[in-house]
Amino acid sequence: MTDGTRVDGFLGGRLQIRQPVDGYRAGADAVMLAAACPARPGQKVLELGCGAGVALICLGWRVREARLAGLELQPTYAELARQNAAANGIEAQIHTGDLGEMPADLRGASFDHVIANPPYFLGGTVALQSGRGISRHEDTVLGAWIHAGLRRLKPGGEITLIQRADRLDDLIAALHGRAGAIRILPIAARQGREAGRVIVLARKGARSPLRLCAPFIMHAKLSHSVDAEDLSPDASRVLRDGDGIAGI
Amino acid sequence: MTDGTRVDGFLGGRLQIRQPVDGYRAGADAVMLAAACPARPGQKVLELGCGAGVALICLGWRVREARLAGLELQPTYAELARQNAAANGIEAQIHTGDLGEMPADLRGASFDHVIANPPYFLGGTVALQSGRGISRHEDTVLGAWIHAGLRRLKPGGEITLIQRADRLDDLIAALHGRAGAIRILPIAARQGREAGRVIVLARKGARSPLRLCAPFIMHAKLSHSVDAEDLSPDASRVLRDGDGIAGI
Repeated sequence: MTDGTRVDGFLGGRLQIRQPVDGYRAGADAVMLAAACPARPGQKVLELGCGAGVALICLGWRVREARLAGLELQPTYAELARQNAAANGIEAQIHTGDLGEMPADLRGASFDHVIANPPYFLGGTVALQSGRGISRHEDTVLGAWIHAGLRRLKPGGEITLIQRADRLDDLIAALHGRAGAIRILPIAARQGREAGRVIVLARKGARSPLRLCAPFIMHAKLSHSVDAEDLSPDASRVLRDGDGIAGI
Repeated sequence: MTDGTRVDGFLGGRLQIRQPVDGYRAGADAVMLAAACPARPGQKVLELGCGAGVALICLGWRVREARLAGLELQPTYAELARQNAAANGIEAQIHTGDLGEMPADLRGASFDHVIANPPYFLGGTVALQSGRGISRHEDTVLGAWIHAGLRRLKPGGEITLIQRADRLDDLIAALHGRAGAIRILPIAARQGREAGRVIVLARKGARSPLRLCAPFIMHAKLSHSVDAEDLSPDASRVLRDGDGIAGI
């Protein structure tokens, strides 16, 4: 598995994670997702589409006693996630399978938290299978991720998602009526810019009102500078130091 | 109609608008709503629930050739809106009636823009009547406002709403599948605070992606000061000078 892969440092080099050179490669979004999940020690966390495990391993690094599980469709990524977790001293159960046809051991389990960074170029509709056969014949693909995640949550459990900001309407429509206490954290490259990403949290079955947080600003300066890095202090604490994102 | 009313200045005193001393009184939110509506000269604009006419009159002051109509349930407010429009030299057709049972002359009309500042403490569901009888037996009250507004829009027409930020999920759920090109402008009291209000725009029948704009900041300083006013430069341009809000 060393051919076609490369080891990248995350959290200021604290984590060394092997990913394919070509194909999907996790980056800052996976780290931000892990930082936004309010898991506490001892709680069970499932990541849908865990790829090579970046978000799950970052979360396990910050919340040492979390009980981590990942679901990944592609066997090569699932195997990388297992190796990466072990190499970084993080315990995680990685399942290979489809979120539309959840493996039986996951279907029987429920979690305090579900996290996901659904692919950014999903479109169209999907036939989504549940344990009792095809329960919804048509759904947006993004909606299918969210509904699969909500089904794996305990009542009162929380889903944490990161996605392109321009999909916020689809995210909210999929959560509406199923989860409440929605919190939206816009992520903007710089102060005064529109959001490129959003982190959305919601609590299964809750009815408390939505909160639209002040944007999380990634870069300190108002425009690109000659410096190689100009992370904002907030972004540096998350991406370099492995801190959680407070106040969402 | 002078008993129990008082004249307030808007747009730095450029407009003098009479409102009841007690009961609902429009303020900065109505001015912000008018500033966000991208109406151009010659276009037809309908305000649902126009009250004493503050938003409509502000819009008419900025876009002189707009053709304005308002719908107001309460006859005393509708009459105030007529008097206020005339007293400020703004032409506007004010209709008295219920948005669930739109007056026939409005039901036969279509508009380039609909604007609304739905009441902030709506709850529950409503039986909503359409011209062909009761078409939707149950709907959220906020959804009923949005659906009534969308029905009065031409294809490609735009709805502009201001609402409490914590109702953003209900706003988006009501627009989802009916209108696209959703733009969300969070309005925050101060930099770094979560949004208290949102302005939401959407285009009937459009499919273009959502945009989550940088927040509009109302106050310049990071905390209350002894100054009577500490409007941000952006807020001052809108609330004092009557400028439109650009870039949404």
